[in-house]
Amino acid sequence: MSKFKIKFSPDEKTIQAQAGQTIMDAAQAGGIDINNACGGDGVCGKCRVIVKKGDVAAPSTIFLTRGDVQKGYVLACLAKVGSDLEVEIPPESRAGQQQILTGSASGSELSTMYSPVEEIEIVAKDSESVFAHSPLATKIHLTLPAPTLQDNVSDLERLYREIRKHGDIPIMQTGLVNLKKLGRRLRENNWDITVLLGQRNQTTEIVFIKPGNTADKNYGIAVDVGTTTVVAHLVDLITQQTLGAVATHNQQQAYGDDVISRIMFASEDGGLEKLHQSVVGNINNLISALVTEHNVSLSDVTALMCAGNTTMTHLLLNVDPTYIRREPYVATANFVPVIRSAEVDLRINRRGLLDCLPGVSSYVGGDITAGTLASGLADADDVCMLIDVGTNGEIVMGNKEWLVCCSASAGPAFEGSGVTCGMRASQGAVQKVDIDPESYQVQYKTIGDAAPRGICGSGMIDILAELLRCRIIDRAGHFIEGLKTDRVTESSEGDKEFVVCFKNETESDRDIIVTQADITNLIRSKGAIYAGAAVLVEKMGLTFNDISKFYIAGGFGSYLSSEKAVLIGLLPDLPLDKFRFIGNASITGAKMALLSHAAMEKVDQIAAKMTYIELSTDNLFNDQFVSALFLPHTDMSLFPTVSKKINKD
Amino acid sequence: MSKFKIKFSPDEKTIQAQAGQTIMDAAQAGGIDINNACGGDGVCGKCRVIVKKGDVAAPSTIFLTRGDVQKGYVLACLAKVGSDLEVEIPPESRAGQQQILTGSASGSELSTMYSPVEEIEIVAKDSESVFAHSPLATKIHLTLPAPTLQDNVSDLERLYREIRKHGDIPIMQTGLVNLKKLGRRLRENNWDITVLLGQRNQTTEIVFIKPGNTADKNYGIAVDVGTTTVVAHLVDLITQQTLGAVATHNQQQAYGDDVISRIMFASEDGGLEKLHQSVVGNINNLISALVTEHNVSLSDVTALMCAGNTTMTHLLLNVDPTYIRREPYVATANFVPVIRSAEVDLRINRRGLLDCLPGVSSYVGGDITAGTLASGLADADDVCMLIDVGTNGEIVMGNKEWLVCCSASAGPAFEGSGVTCGMRASQGAVQKVDIDPESYQVQYKTIGDAAPRGICGSGMIDILAELLRCRIIDRAGHFIEGLKTDRVTESSEGDKEFVVCFKNETESDRDIIVTQADITNLIRSKGAIYAGAAVLVEKMGLTFNDISKFYIAGGFGSYLSSEKAVLIGLLPDLPLDKFRFIGNASITGAKMALLSHAAMEKVDQIAAKMTYIELSTDNLFNDQFVSALFLPHTDMSLFPTVSKKINKD
Repeated sequence: MSKFKIKFSPDEKTIQAQAGQTIMDAAQAGGIDINNACGGDGVCGKCRVIVKKGDVAAPSTIFLTRGDVQKGYVLACLAKVGSDLEVEIPPESRAGQQQILTGSASGSELSTMYSPVEEIEIVAKDSESVFAHSPLATKIHLTLPAPTLQDNVSDLERLYREIRKHGDIPIMQTGLVNLKKLGRRLRENNWDITVLLGQRNQTTEIVFIKPGNTADKNYGIAVDVGTTTVVAHLVDLITQQTLGAVATHNQQQAYGDDVISRIMFASEDGGLEKLHQSVVGNINNLISALVTEHNVSLSDVTALMCAGNTTMTHLLLNVDPTYIRREPYVATANFVPVIRSAEVDLRINRRGLLDCLPGVSSYVGGDITAGTLASGLADADDVCMLIDVGTNGEIVMGNKEWLVCCSASAGPAFEGSGVTCGMRASQGAVQKVDIDPESYQVQYKTIGDAAPRGICGSGMIDILAELLRCRIIDRAGHFIEGLKTDRVTESSEGDKEFVVCFKNETESDRDIIVTQADITNLIRSKGAIYAGAAVLVEKMGLTFNDISKFYIAGGFGSYLSSEKAVLIGLLPDLPLDKFRFIGNASITGAKMALLSHAAMEKVDQIAAKMTYIELSTDNLFNDQFVSALFLPHTDMSLFPTVSKKINKD
Repeated sequence: MSKFKIKFSPDEKTIQAQAGQTIMDAAQAGGIDINNACGGDGVCGKCRVIVKKGDVAAPSTIFLTRGDVQKGYVLACLAKVGSDLEVEIPPESRAGQQQILTGSASGSELSTMYSPVEEIEIVAKDSESVFAHSPLATKIHLTLPAPTLQDNVSDLERLYREIRKHGDIPIMQTGLVNLKKLGRRLRENNWDITVLLGQRNQTTEIVFIKPGNTADKNYGIAVDVGTTTVVAHLVDLITQQTLGAVATHNQQQAYGDDVISRIMFASEDGGLEKLHQSVVGNINNLISALVTEHNVSLSDVTALMCAGNTTMTHLLLNVDPTYIRREPYVATANFVPVIRSAEVDLRINRRGLLDCLPGVSSYVGGDITAGTLASGLADADDVCMLIDVGTNGEIVMGNKEWLVCCSASAGPAFEGSGVTCGMRASQGAVQKVDIDPESYQVQYKTIGDAAPRGICGSGMIDILAELLRCRIIDRAGHFIEGLKTDRVTESSEGDKEFVVCFKNETESDRDIIVTQADITNLIRSKGAIYAGAAVLVEKMGLTFNDISKFYIAGGFGSYLSSEKAVLIGLLPDLPLDKFRFIGNASITGAKMALLSHAAMEKVDQIAAKMTYIELSTDNLFNDQFVSALFLPHTDMSLFPTVSKKINKD
């Protein structure tokens, strides 16, 4: 078979390719990262590249306009190599924050997105229970009394006896590896040692025994293993402080954008292992970045607590998720055992522990139980609701007495997929938008105040709200005809688009736009979430008015306008002080569980107590969903303040 | 350095040796087994070999007579190779039942020594408690209800739920390895599986999950890890039957005869590993012999239960025993965790479990707690005593209320070391002796009715008793002058000896004799045991008459005469029906613990409850010991029936 070379700009890297291979396959084999949200099926249009020189064979696709094609654009996953090539990867197709993955010291570019201190404060304010400090792994310094003829219990019993002075520990375990070294270690260090105690499946494990007093250094990592983004926080297990936060895109996206496509990929030969290694690599790189930046020794990192949806947890543990997507939608495990992190190649102290927050069902995972913990909802006297706006919109409702939850398939629009210029809440994402109703001039704000590269979830909510408020679109989401502005243009196919940022303002050579199709997508997403919430409320014989507080969680960056979320009908029309944006509640919950065994026990109770309501088979949901496909809703009486606003403006 | 060849007969094997190397070292390196009880220090005289041809340099030794030297005898551990050699290993120097170690199918030559059925009957008769059948590892066949939309708990929860129908299991654990395969395994086998449940440190572990119903095959091995002999029984964990028993010498003897010399060797560089590998090799060979003979698949052997003294348990687990022999004599662990047998290279099912019976102190180990369990002593209403006649004579006294124990350093005389023609209770050992008081003719019985090779413990007791009864020796153990018999001879050094078997009756070319020094040794051994028992009784304010039953344990073979044991003063002079010989109580206890978690819990209670009384620092013991250095005792009023017998005869 003929071999060709592809030279990629702007990196100026040259790789080998075989005739007939797609540019994507060649790029992946050669270590070049190109956005690949759909896993190479040609259905997401995220892998646009420009062929500057050479021949490719590429089918036509709705993701490329005639103009694009004339400029040399192809989808890398569809274009087959026919000669030596020169290919440019435009900014919007570069695979996000991949620089983190190299493990360089300053891997915290995304850390501005996450505000650990704020999150902890939110929890402290809202959660009635304060959880006792008892981390997944605790170091204790011990000075044992040396044995005498009168007190000659064995070394291990002596150690157990001394440890039990620090607390009531009914079942204590330790492995052979510690036993082997015990006699010498105790005597060579004059009975002065530090032990690491791990909370392990209702028992306490002596994880390791070190010479002298090293109890002043003990760190843990909390990880939010999201379908789209993986976030890690470095936590001082002694002071309970968060020392740093980093994030990266979940590299599994190379194999599929949502959990369903990843489960399908996992079911293929070798697929599970690839997905597993991807996320393990992600987390290892985040850990490496955190410990380097904060000057922490990896051997002092003794505990990892992960919160992810059920599929992510399966993939992290290398457990086949196949049956999650087959009726009757059963997970292999919702409660997973505490293991040694080295068992899944996660690199902290080689005897360090890994725990995952428990899930409720195949579609309500540890991220939601974590969020429920973090919100304090499970301790509330009044009924509260948690809405996690992700690819799956997960909704929890209840109080200290009861908990119900559901999952509404919202699609990835608010996470930056399935919309033309969507992107994750990272550097250069448009996160806040105001439109002048007279001039249609746009004021926007990007994350990191960088040149705009795309639009993230909070930006999408703002744009949709502003387009409606300024009567650029109608309540069905259709562009209103005859507006005098160059912001509303038409594609070569004749579809209307709104230009948020003109190409001269952007990092790329393209306008950042919202198309008619994007608007339809966004409306479906917000409609699904609203419908899920409405069904949950109705099922419990309540109305939205009965809910005292709404916690909105999601990776929106640090900005979200509840007013605009109400305006588009994502959230119900209620006094705005009922809404509280709690950011990444999943990682907050993970941190709480990492720092407190009591919090972990609380999450276990939450998961055991929560009733999952399946919406996909429910007519009520379908009715609600269809009604919610207007802005804000078919039934305007449900949105009195919005009604006023639209009429007034 | 010059290289020479050594040809060994009768095996006709030729090996390489270096100039100056001892014959023993060369033999060990070349895989030739020679008795080596003292570990090569030239102090046991057990490694006599005959140099038929070639030059050796050998120092003089008390273990070889001039006649021996003229015949070419040397001690293999002292004789250095000076040329090519031809060396004969006489029968008495062959390292016992080494043929077992080759793992051939019929490895049960020694099984005649052990009578598992008898032992179990003894236990059933004497132990008041009947322990519920709940082995260390239990297989359960499960047919799980397939999940439905209404019953869609996760696979693991479904499995736990089903298992819990079989019993109250508060803490259930399982490893990642089982989780990974769970979803597929359940579905591919139509929810029809067999799980192995292990009792693991107060929790229950799902050890493995297999397709279909394989619950009808589940085996365990109980092992008595003795300093001298290692015994293994194959047990059907379902029917509770003992299927077979094999034994071998503890190969660690190559490195020292008693626990002290082995601890010293273990403290040397690489010593621990050698001792560990020796006993692991022993046990693996026994297991291999058992499963081959009984046509059992190794993967169906799922549990190992070992009883050994504290040092043996340490060496088995590769835990440094150094501190056992340093004041204040502390073990690394008396209660050891349940581990996977593969962690110490013991070969059963690779996920099978290993547990060891708990010890009380550095010198009272799991063999004694096992014996205490087996004897039923810890459930007795009246005070009973257990005497385990081994290299360390261990004595336990008590009832269901209290338990005390001590260890009397008896020396290995009753186990066949430290006496000229001593040997273990194996094929060809003289085990029963009668002497005619008129003619001095000897009638003896050997194990397996084979030609005599030496004398085992029960034979030694008989001979000592008969020599006394027939007035061949006096009460101090000295030969009486002027007897008219060719049985009493003199060595070249002028020491008296008694010929038990003339050389024409034996397998070797040597008389089987008991020397004056042997008799002194045996009297010291029996004296130490009696003194230990007497001190224990006195310390508790009792007399021997207060003890309702004596359990005598030890590897004597199936024969022991309590009458003769009383005659020599090994046992107190009491009605003979108070004595009960229970054989190898250590392995019986190990089997009980293997078959019943309740029995294991009972042993834990026994170990926790037992008070160890240190004799080595006790004046009372020294006084008693000196008084017991007569036959039967200095104070004849303690032995009225013996007194009558000696006077009557």
